Amino acid sequence: MNDYRQLRINGQRLWDSLMEMAQIGATQKGGCNRQALTDLDKQGRDLFVKWCEDAGCNVTVDEMGNIFAQRPGTGSKGGPDLPPVLTGSHLDTQPTGGKFDGVYGVLAGLEVIRTLNDANVETAAPVEVAVWTNEEGARFSPAMIGSGVWAGEFDLDYAYARQDKEGNTFGAELERIGYKGQAPAKPRPLAAAFEVHIEQGPILEAEEKTIGVLSGVQGMNWYDLTLIGQPCHAGPSPMEGRRDPFMGLHRILDQLYKLAEEHAPWARATFGDIRVEPGSRNTVPEKLVLAVDLRHPDQKTLDAMDQRFREIAARIAEETGLEHEIREEWRSPAVAFDTKCVEAVRSAVADLGYSNKEMVSGAGHDSVYISRVAPTSMIFVPCEKGLSHNEAENAEPKDLEAGANVLLHAMLKMANPG
Amino acid sequence: MNDYRQLRINGQRLWDSLMEMAQIGATQKGGCNRQALTDLDKQGRDLFVKWCEDAGCNVTVDEMGNIFAQRPGTGSKGGPDLPPVLTGSHLDTQPTGGKFDGVYGVLAGLEVIRTLNDANVETAAPVEVAVWTNEEGARFSPAMIGSGVWAGEFDLDYAYARQDKEGNTFGAELERIGYKGQAPAKPRPLAAAFEVHIEQGPILEAEEKTIGVLSGVQGMNWYDLTLIGQPCHAGPSPMEGRRDPFMGLHRILDQLYKLAEEHAPWARATFGDIRVEPGSRNTVPEKLVLAVDLRHPDQKTLDAMDQRFREIAARIAEETGLEHEIREEWRSPAVAFDTKCVEAVRSAVADLGYSNKEMVSGAGHDSVYISRVAPTSMIFVPCEKGLSHNEAENAEPKDLEAGANVLLHAMLKMANPG
Repeated sequence: MNDYRQLRINGQRLWDSLMEMAQIGATQKGGCNRQALTDLDKQGRDLFVKWCEDAGCNVTVDEMGNIFAQRPGTGSKGGPDLPPVLTGSHLDTQPTGGKFDGVYGVLAGLEVIRTLNDANVETAAPVEVAVWTNEEGARFSPAMIGSGVWAGEFDLDYAYARQDKEGNTFGAELERIGYKGQAPAKPRPLAAAFEVHIEQGPILEAEEKTIGVLSGVQGMNWYDLTLIGQPCHAGPSPMEGRRDPFMGLHRILDQLYKLAEEHAPWARATFGDIRVEPGSRNTVPEKLVLAVDLRHPDQKTLDAMDQRFREIAARIAEETGLEHEIREEWRSPAVAFDTKCVEAVRSAVADLGYSNKEMVSGAGHDSVYISRVAPTSMIFVPCEKGLSHNEAENAEPKDLEAGANVLLHAMLKMANPG
Repeated sequence: MNDYRQLRINGQRLWDSLMEMAQIGATQKGGCNRQALTDLDKQGRDLFVKWCEDAGCNVTVDEMGNIFAQRPGTGSKGGPDLPPVLTGSHLDTQPTGGKFDGVYGVLAGLEVIRTLNDANVETAAPVEVAVWTNEEGARFSPAMIGSGVWAGEFDLDYAYARQDKEGNTFGAELERIGYKGQAPAKPRPLAAAFEVHIEQGPILEAEEKTIGVLSGVQGMNWYDLTLIGQPCHAGPSPMEGRRDPFMGLHRILDQLYKLAEEHAPWARATFGDIRVEPGSRNTVPEKLVLAVDLRHPDQKTLDAMDQRFREIAARIAEETGLEHEIREEWRSPAVAFDTKCVEAVRSAVADLGYSNKEMVSGAGHDSVYISRVAPTSMIFVPCEKGLSHNEAENAEPKDLEAGANVLLHAMLKMANPG
């Protein structure tokens, strides 16, 4: 493989593709609103497919609208076809999303294929770029449903029946934009799967590293914690004897932040939302519902945090005279990426000489589902101030170029084994 | 006055009036929804006016829709008319209100007049029952605007311009239901003003007392406390370095509950509502807005609590890297009722032999405004479990009868001075 050591992607062409794609659904504040299965999503898909066909790829679309653009391989010497080396991410965005989240991973894959074409490099295994449908979950819940159905996490019928806020179903919208394909949304043998993505966090920027070598994805548990008390008038009711959900809440928050501290630096405890009933200024609430998000990259530690969370909530609810309920909204177990794929990334980074950091992903990605059925790993590049899901999302062209070069060389290692 | 010592109101008639009024706007759960200036409010007013006219009263309506039903007095011996002795409360209810809050005070006043009529008792000063418009503030904010304009707290134009959620103005709705009267909404000389009301708290019931003799009303301060942090993704962002409004919130709540404890048993700290932005499960919020309600019957203590609240919020916001803002939503200074009026109530209770407790009101009432321009005091009776602003609001007929008897004799003392 020494022949390809000097091979580099075209950073300018990658940037130009990103900026051209970003015009579809461009927002006034410089971001992107290109939600899944909208007319704008169709425009973005059409542009991507055209680019892939121009690059000589065979494009197929599956029943979930997932797009696969394959650059054929030469096969094993005189033998049968080899399973492809895949990369991919998503083209859909949040309603006030940025230009890079997902799109970068798709277009970096395309840029890999263009680079191989330019240099007339043949690979034994096919090289393939995937676009996974509705990763964001912004229009249709849940997130990552395209890769999820493909990997067997969700049923196809379940996915088709998902509705947006206006009541349009996923299935009808998929058909309407012409991306309900024939290929079954099912796994097939892959030699490897990679995904390059902006970090969506501040670590690489803060530590001035160019590449994040990912060993896995945090496990995450989502809960609704409900605390139920006794509503009463703010004036006449003595403090003693009140059953006030806020009296339990502040003590539970205190203990959960301490729990995250005990498992520093990787544990996370986040409270993104809270609802109150009846929500009248001069009435002790009857009910608080707190959204709780606990994460850790080690599944055993996360399980221990789950246990402690339940103990803390039960004890404090009892001590404050409240009823409580914990509803599990979602569980995503910790993922350890494939050793060989991680080693391919590590080795590519070493060859290319980029500063780097071994890390885990704190966010969910299509790779979480892909990793269940294929050897998988991920590559991160820094993004400005860690901002994502935000129109101000930004990344340096040189970092995006570096990440695509790592992707190129990691894919080459896996596509030309031995 | 010895002649009237044995005079008692008719408890059954009072109860029947309450139940008849409660049918107007009756809810399935046994409560009342008769919000200010609705068609149902008009029906309730019409019924009250009819009853007053049947009882021989002169009824006037002022520019705010406040209704005054006067039973003439005999005047001072051979001299001019005396200023009336007033009682009153409100007929409007919360959307899911009860049958007694406000209505009891109005109909107990009517029952006093009916009792005087039945016994052919003449008083030197006129005896008068008032209905104050929109006490609840449920349809038009702020609360107690009828008595507030009358006592000079608010301008008439301000009141007329208040809008409900559909954009209907107070002034237009007042005119529509035919209760925009001619009399100026301005104070005139009153010998005394009383208001009898259910406690809306659990103290009398818990201590098994029939009558609360009120010496004043808690001062109350309403604030919106805003905590502003930096939104970030729940997964990638390390706990250290987060600027998370919930991290400040739980410490502030802890300190404010401790502050209330320091000023037990009369201090109150209540958090009835909280809003979060953007309110996404896996994003550290940018902003929390907490409704803070602090109360104490002693104004100096309340002022000290106000000061401490500001110090606590500022210190903890700084320590947790948050910006903060405290917006004052409303201030109602502590009220000390008129000594002579309180003494009249105390003396009536002693004559009647009811068990009683000296207390302050924790809730706002029309009497807070009336007390600024006339000698005023209040009488409480127990209500079941302290529940109010609730369809399950309930009170014992014998307690309602006792409260009306106290009202009768306190009014008699002030209407026949000397």
